[in-house]
Amino acid sequence: MRIAVFAGDGIGPEVTEQAVRVLEALGLPGLELVAGDVGGAAYRKHGHPLPAATLETARSAGAILFGAVGDFTLDHLERALRPEQAILGLRKELGLFANLRPARVFQGLESLTTLRAEVAEKIDLLIVRELNGDVYFGEKGMRTLDDGRRQGWDMMSYAEDEVRRIAHVGFKAAMGRGKKLCSVDKANVLETSQLWRDVMIEVAAEYPEVELTHMYVDNAAMQLVKNPGAFDVIVTGNLFGDILSDQASMCVGSIGLLASASLAETSFGLYEPIHGSAPDIAGKGLANPMATILSAAMLLRHSFGLEDQAARIEAAVAAALADGIKGGDLGGSAGTREIGDAVLARL
Amino acid sequence: MRIAVFAGDGIGPEVTEQAVRVLEALGLPGLELVAGDVGGAAYRKHGHPLPAATLETARSAGAILFGAVGDFTLDHLERALRPEQAILGLRKELGLFANLRPARVFQGLESLTTLRAEVAEKIDLLIVRELNGDVYFGEKGMRTLDDGRRQGWDMMSYAEDEVRRIAHVGFKAAMGRGKKLCSVDKANVLETSQLWRDVMIEVAAEYPEVELTHMYVDNAAMQLVKNPGAFDVIVTGNLFGDILSDQASMCVGSIGLLASASLAETSFGLYEPIHGSAPDIAGKGLANPMATILSAAMLLRHSFGLEDQAARIEAAVAAALADGIKGGDLGGSAGTREIGDAVLARL
Ligand SMILES: CC(C)[C@H](C(=O)O)[C@@H](O)C(=O)O
Ligand SMILES: CC(C)[C@H](C(=O)O)[C@@H](O)C(=O)O
Repeated sequence: MRIAVFAGDGIGPEVTEQAVRVLEALGLPGLELVAGDVGGAAYRKHGHPLPAATLETARSAGAILFGAVGDFTLDHLERALRPEQAILGLRKELGLFANLRPARVFQGLESLTTLRAEVAEKIDLLIVRELNGDVYFGEKGMRTLDDGRRQGWDMMSYAEDEVRRIAHVGFKAAMGRGKKLCSVDKANVLETSQLWRDVMIEVAAEYPEVELTHMYVDNAAMQLVKNPGAFDVIVTGNLFGDILSDQASMCVGSIGLLASASLAETSFGLYEPIHGSAPDIAGKGLANPMATILSAAMLLRHSFGLEDQAARIEAAVAAALADGIKGGDLGGSAGTREIGDAVLARL
Repeated sequence: MRIAVFAGDGIGPEVTEQAVRVLEALGLPGLELVAGDVGGAAYRKHGHPLPAATLETARSAGAILFGAVGDFTLDHLERALRPEQAILGLRKELGLFANLRPARVFQGLESLTTLRAEVAEKIDLLIVRELNGDVYFGEKGMRTLDDGRRQGWDMMSYAEDEVRRIAHVGFKAAMGRGKKLCSVDKANVLETSQLWRDVMIEVAAEYPEVELTHMYVDNAAMQLVKNPGAFDVIVTGNLFGDILSDQASMCVGSIGLLASASLAETSFGLYEPIHGSAPDIAGKGLANPMATILSAAMLLRHSFGLEDQAARIEAAVAAALADGIKGGDLGGSAGTREIGDAVLARL
């Protein structure tokens, strides 16, 4: 049972440290944790945000626990060397095509969101975002047109098999939840979306119990404000998923608690908190490690089938929260290690 | 003073009718109103959502008052014939490159948004969206790859002059407001965005008083939930602007009151309510015409320089609201004509 731990930049190292303590405390037989450099930290050490050795470590493991990448002091680098390339490279190289982003308001934390309590408390949705295609990984470039003007360009596309495999993830997730799947696209403008919609409708035939609806992305952004509680599972492409999953997370308010999974077609997956590297508080022991600890729980569940241990971690986090152990992001004053201790004590 | 009135689909005819009554009541010298068919209504009559005659009418006028297009019973048509092509065609053919979408919570209507009152009441922002480029108007198509798979594709791009002219609109708008301009892009992934950001920085040199910041679109979607009051002017591309302007509108809550302007490089412009064709209530006399009436006010201000008359209309709408005249969308019971009467009585 080998887990790659890629701590990365900013608060990444602090928060993964606490998640590692939790994993180690479970007494999992054969557990082996292997570290690897990613992001700005890797660039500074090896000249590349995703060194070959890191990729090799990833391939040798059954799952990756990921901290965060991002370092604005490296923004001047050409894009291929910027910290974010680590996560994009891992997604592509390891075929991590399905991003699962659950958003649910934690009981007792309703006051953290800017939405009215009666709207926020109904939020319980899952965004299934495609991660390997779309305008993210198409050809792109900067060119000078014949008349001398500079132009930036990016090719957006989806092929039917790319849509089909994420459609299945969406429908299966809906089967395990409220059986409502909302596919978000922009089919009134984009051919990429038209193909997306056509394939969603084709795959729907295999899931007669699931109610499939379609929504334009602009309307989805509206409905996430107006009535986010009406959504069960949303399935969407890479670019729209990037925007909507972050919007939905902020509707929940407590982004220091939100975990995510990026899954391959096998049981392999990468698990990370959604909060990012937060350079302003990095190294101060202030970061809330709960989202990373909850990511470790997702890792045990999805990649190793360890439902009991995953549930144990989740219960310990919930108990710590119930006892008022809260980081600064939740309006409390508990530090990184203190929160780690609190979760460990309740395992 | 010739104004083209394109009522379109759904509630379009009802709401423009009331706006026309208001325009006529102002006693504007030389006012001439010319109708034209657009959208699904035009398709049914002429086989095309934007007939040549309509385009000609538009070109002969100084501005367009637009209702709404959209008719889901025509969704099966090939994209070029769908109702939405009318608005896309008008934007492109008439060079309407700058979409202005103000979002401000109306006093006394704070309870209509799902955001907490203390968050919502601070919203006073303007989104400047580019309307003539991006993935909307690039080459696109559906193809079969060599291995037989279907693929949908769309080319995203911006050339420097396209970015420069919308940048100037953004900076000028910021000069007339709080002098803060936030440019939204996805420069960590897209070359189109990198060019966008580079040009924004170049143009900033001409507006030393404006504070220019950059934000990734996923973060912008988060900040519009967390603290929308922090924004002054947002400038962004066609696709991101589509999503963020609708999200911001819903933060305000009362979308039945929100107007928009789509401007050319001359004084020419198209003015429309943002609410769309609302087929569910079409023809019932229930639609709130205030957003269209306020669009007419924007039209007088931007295309004809009639600030006084624009302000008169806006004051009449505000007075009607203050007197409790509210459509169903605002929790009231006033019908379309009743609201038109109420505004007319307060002109
Ligand atoms: C860092 C960035 C490239 C990345 C993305 O856009 O996918 C991030 O926003 C995310 O959602 O994981
Ligand atoms: C109808 C549609 C093509 C249009 C767009 O995407 O621009 C609409 O959503 C808008 O924002 O005016």
